[in-house]
Formats: sequence, C-alpha cells, structure tokens
Amino acid sequence: MTGPRYTPLVASLPATVPFVGPETQERARGAAFRARLGANESLFGPSPRAIAAMEQAAREVWMYGDPENHDLRQALAAHHRVSPANIVVGEGIDGLLGYLVRMLVGTGDPVVTSDGAYPTFNFHVAGYGGTLHKVPYKADAEDPEALIARAAAVGAKLIYIANPDNPMGSHHPAATIRAMIDACPDGSLIVLDEAYIDLAPDGTAPDIAADDPRVIRMRTFSKGYGMAGLRVGYAIGDAPLITAFNKVRNHFGMGRIAQAGALAALADQAWLAEVRTRVAAARARVGAIAAENGLTALPSATNFVTVDCGRDGDFARSVLKECVARGVFIRMPFVAPMDRCIRISLGDDTALDVLAEVLPQALAAARG
Amino acid sequence: MTGPRYTPLVASLPATVPFVGPETQERARGAAFRARLGANESLFGPSPRAIAAMEQAAREVWMYGDPENHDLRQALAAHHRVSPANIVVGEGIDGLLGYLVRMLVGTGDPVVTSDGAYPTFNFHVAGYGGTLHKVPYKADAEDPEALIARAAAVGAKLIYIANPDNPMGSHHPAATIRAMIDACPDGSLIVLDEAYIDLAPDGTAPDIAADDPRVIRMRTFSKGYGMAGLRVGYAIGDAPLITAFNKVRNHFGMGRIAQAGALAALADQAWLAEVRTRVAAARARVGAIAAENGLTALPSATNFVTVDCGRDGDFARSVLKECVARGVFIRMPFVAPMDRCIRISLGDDTALDVLAEVLPQALAAARG
Repeated sequence: MTGPRYTPLVASLPATVPFVGPETQERARGAAFRARLGANESLFGPSPRAIAAMEQAAREVWMYGDPENHDLRQALAAHHRVSPANIVVGEGIDGLLGYLVRMLVGTGDPVVTSDGAYPTFNFHVAGYGGTLHKVPYKADAEDPEALIARAAAVGAKLIYIANPDNPMGSHHPAATIRAMIDACPDGSLIVLDEAYIDLAPDGTAPDIAADDPRVIRMRTFSKGYGMAGLRVGYAIGDAPLITAFNKVRNHFGMGRIAQAGALAALADQAWLAEVRTRVAAARARVGAIAAENGLTALPSATNFVTVDCGRDGDFARSVLKECVARGVFIRMPFVAPMDRCIRISLGDDTALDVLAEVLPQALAAARG
Repeated sequence: MTGPRYTPLVASLPATVPFVGPETQERARGAAFRARLGANESLFGPSPRAIAAMEQAAREVWMYGDPENHDLRQALAAHHRVSPANIVVGEGIDGLLGYLVRMLVGTGDPVVTSDGAYPTFNFHVAGYGGTLHKVPYKADAEDPEALIARAAAVGAKLIYIANPDNPMGSHHPAATIRAMIDACPDGSLIVLDEAYIDLAPDGTAPDIAADDPRVIRMRTFSKGYGMAGLRVGYAIGDAPLITAFNKVRNHFGMGRIAQAGALAALADQAWLAEVRTRVAAARARVGAIAAENGLTALPSATNFVTVDCGRDGDFARSVLKECVARGVFIRMPFVAPMDRCIRISLGDDTALDVLAEVLPQALAAARG
C-alpha cells in the first residue's frame, strides 16, 4: 500500500495556516476571551433585517442556493450602478482571491504585494506556485508607486493592494488609487481589496469604469455589514474576467442562508450608516484609552485601530501576549517596523471597558 | 490597456457549468416550479434542532467560524469512531473534491471515473488539467472491477466511485467496495463518494481502517440530513492526507451557521431515522406512480428514484422536458444507455401528488 501521489507543488508546500483562530487560543488557555477584538469582526453585528432573513432561510436550507447568485448579483449591480455581468459572488474575499490567483498564477509567475500585507493572499500565491515580490510599507501605509514600479520591473501578473489597509488602518484617497490604476503596467491586474471601504472616509473609493481590464475590486459582507461568519464576498470587474470565474469556482458554494443574509443586509443601508457612527465613536474611545496609557493610536479608516506601543516588535509582542493572557483577543502586524504596534478591533462599550481595564495591566507586565 | 494574463490551462477551459440550477429554469419559464424534485434535495428538511441551532448562530454571525472546525470534527470523529485527525470539513463534497483534485492532479495526470458519474468531479479534474479515463456502467451500476482495471492500466492517481450511485440510485454491498479497495493499484487513491450512504440499506458502508492510505471517504449534510443549502461536507481518511488539505483549503471557509447547523444535525440521529422512514415510503409511492404509468422504477438506495422510461434517450429527454414545462423539476442521466431514464428526487406527499398528476400528461405529450 502506498499513499497518494501529490503534485510536486503541493508536496513542497508547508502545512502552515494563514491565521490561528481565537477559538484555538481559547482551547489552549482553557477559558473564553472576555473581549474578542482580534479578527476585525464587527461587534455591532449585522442588520436585524439580515438576521431575520437568515432565520427564514434556515427553514428553507434543504434547498441548494441558486448557483448563479442571481438575486444578490442583481442587487449588488444596482447598488454599484454596474451590470450583473460585472459581479461575481464567492466564499468571502478569501475564496475569491483563491480563484483569482488560480486563474492567473502558475509556477514561477511574478506577483507583487506589500511586505506585511494580507497573509491569506500570500497563502494563495504560494499555493499556486507563484513568486511573491514584496515592497516595503511607507509611513505605515502601502506604497502604490513602489508597487507599480516593482510590478513593471518583474512583469507581475497580479498587484495586490488593500485600501483601506489592514493591518495598519491607513488609507489613500481615491485620487492616489486612481493614479495607481492609470500607471498599471500592461499585462498586470491590480487586486484592489476594499474589505474595509464601508468604514472609510467619503472619497476613499475611486470611480472605476466597470469594464476597466486593469483592476478587480474585492468587497465583503464581513466587516461593515457585520457578517464575517456568513462568508460572502464579491468582486467587481471587467465582464470577461468575471465570467472566467465560472471556469473554476465552486458553483454551488454560496449557500441559501448566505445569499439571503447578504441580500437583506445590502438592502438595509441605514444599518450600515449606524455602524459607521458607532465605529467612529469606538475609534475615539480606543484613541483615548491608548493616550491614557501613553500610547499613540494611528489614524484609522477601518473597524480597527492600530496602536503604536512606542518601542520595538518584541515589546509589542509582549503587550499582545499579556493582553491575551488577560482575556483580550487582539492581533498585531507581523513585519517591522509596523510590528511596534498592536491592532485592536472596534467593539461595543462592554468590550472596550475590558480593554480599558486590561491594557494598563498588560503594559505594566510587558514593561516588567 | 491589456487584460489579465490567464494561465494556459485556465485560458483553455470552457466556461461551462456542471449543472443549471432550478432557479435559472424558473426565471426562464417565468414561474416557480410546483414540485422541486430534480436536485436530490431532501424535501423532508433538516432536524428542527438543527434549524434552532442555525437561528441561534445567525445572531452570532458577526464572528468568523472556527477555522479548525474543532467541535464539529470532534463530534464527527466520535460518531465514526476515528480520530479528529482523520476528519476534514469543507464547503460540501464539491468543495472537498476540488481541494483533493488540486492536491493530486496536475496537467495530464490520469484519473478514472465512470462514464455518466458525477459531473462536478469531472469539472474539477478538467479544471486542474487532469486526463479523465471513463469506464462504462454495467447493469445500471458503477463497475468496481472495470474501474480498478482501468486505473491499473493508466496509472491513475485518483479513482472515483459513488456508493450508492448517482444518477442511477444503485448500490454495491460493503463487501464489493471492500474488495475494490483491496485491489487498489499502488499509487492510486480511491475517492469513495458516500453522499447518499445515510439513505442506503444497512451493510452498504464498508469498514475501512481510518489510516488506510488507499481510500478517502466523502460524506455530506446535504442529503439525509437535509441541509443542501448549508454547504457542509466532510472527508474521512488517513491523517497525513487529511492534514494536507490544510495546505490548500480556505481556512475560514466554513461559516459559523454552517458549523452550528451541522453539529446539531449530527446530534439528532432520531431525525435521520425518521427521514429514512419517510424516504422509504416515498420510494414506494414513486414506484407505484411509475407502474401506474407503465414505467419501471429502478431499485433505489438513495433519496431519489431513477425511472426507466422504456425507450431511448430522446424519449426520456422529451418526458423530462414535458414534466419541466408542467412545473415539475426533475433531472436525468446524461449518458446512454442510462439516459433512457428520468431521475426523481423523493418528496413529501404534496410534491408527489403533483408528480402523479403531471407524469401521465408529460408521457402523453412525449408520445405525441
């Protein structure tokens, strides 16, 4: 008896995972977290109308979801004033990034991203054998000019940029992204990850013609819409590119509850506006908590605040560890010099009360 | 401006889809189906306890699901008396088949299946550039000996067999599958798709050592458990193979509602037993309806009945078309000689009343 014969590529891949989930940490520590502020989930939750739609769909879940995601794509197209042919829905941005990388990237194909940007994108590029070229952050933000220059130099098939950025919470105005698209090298495709755009200041999202073949935008119901556990993302792009997803996607991958919940959430823009208000208030409070502890909250265009701990990565890692040990789940950037920071998702008052209680203790412990 | 540069493989793929969904047909005909009996969904629905768990999880869906699917894997392992290290959970069997093919099949790699078996498996093999070798059905059943012989001849990396079979509803006893595994050529992996096993006669599922490297079993919550629209499947296999899924899977792909619903459904085995009883009664009724119309229902080990229309594929296609035109959604085998049949999912009395009303009309129309 022999085992399966993996492809050479898969045989060569490490069994690492992009992220360790909070449940894994809770099992390890033998207790639930007091405040869940590490995964940029929305503690403000989804629209009550979306919850009602999901409850209704649960009773109809014996039926497969529509494999064309017709009603949701129609609604998204109307919302963005594009055609449904410009919209593909998938299993979160993570799922869509996987399909996109598969469509474009083969062994050795060059891809450009920022050093310290979204690890799951890197996971997919490695998973299809691509070669990642990383450019450094500049002043705690992704550097569009450097990304474009590197892409031109290496002949990148894909250029990844998130705006607003995770993990720093920074953002570029629409004009900067617009200029980046206009400078896109021939044969490159920009992946504009706008997961956090619903929380960003007005004027952050550029106008992009739906049929612009140089860029594909990624959006999600996980952040502003508060449904990370539903797994619904979508992409907006040139119709031939969007159609090509049908060659590889899991056609029945979007379940019935997922489609119903997203459709209802999209229809409740008043809830999204309410979430924006609450996020703004929570940003201010985290800023105040940071200041009370002698730390500096960086400007945030997202549903999290990245807090500069004022020393090196080892110190920030120590602060994070002490927060986690006290029941506050947070994360932090992986790469220097951004790893001088911790990253705190924006929560409700109950969660931020716990943060205000624990952070001084964690800092004291980290300072030894 | 140029468009994206696809991989040569993806550029060569057709934009076909494995199945057209019933919603697409409903939009084309401008009316809802009166009876939804084409996708082997369970009209008997999920456990009420599963519905309650999904409703509860809908209120907690702001949280990502546990990326390790820990609680569900623990429960599945206990249910099957294996270790959690032998269980991987994924986005339906469709999703897991995609990951598995990706792990093993590269351009030109040989894969064996039956001609007329599950198209979505073929979709994945084509999608990763594999070469499909097909053996014919034998007496309306998959032919394990022929599959093994062809696999040995071509050096297949994967051998697909569904037991019970879709689309014919036939099954092999455990001993036959056991003999197939024992005859598995070195370097081949058998994919034993047991999507319908929960509806099969006792003695259909073979005992397989969890660490047998020659076979991976696929199970689902879509059929007997009645949650097709939730998208939860799992595989049971040798721990190294199961671990290798972590190299490629969408780690946060299983949402919070999906995990909660599956966990509650698994705990309610009494509901599954009730569904088996109802399925048996519905089988008998479809058999009677077929007989009243001069047709022959084939024996079924599944939640559908395949009905021999007694003439050629053109006639069966005509019967199907006339059923669909009258609001009864059914499907049929694609390949001769099985395409002399139509395939009717097992429904409740309401749906089967519609079938009993419409089938004679459809036959009369098809007979011209």
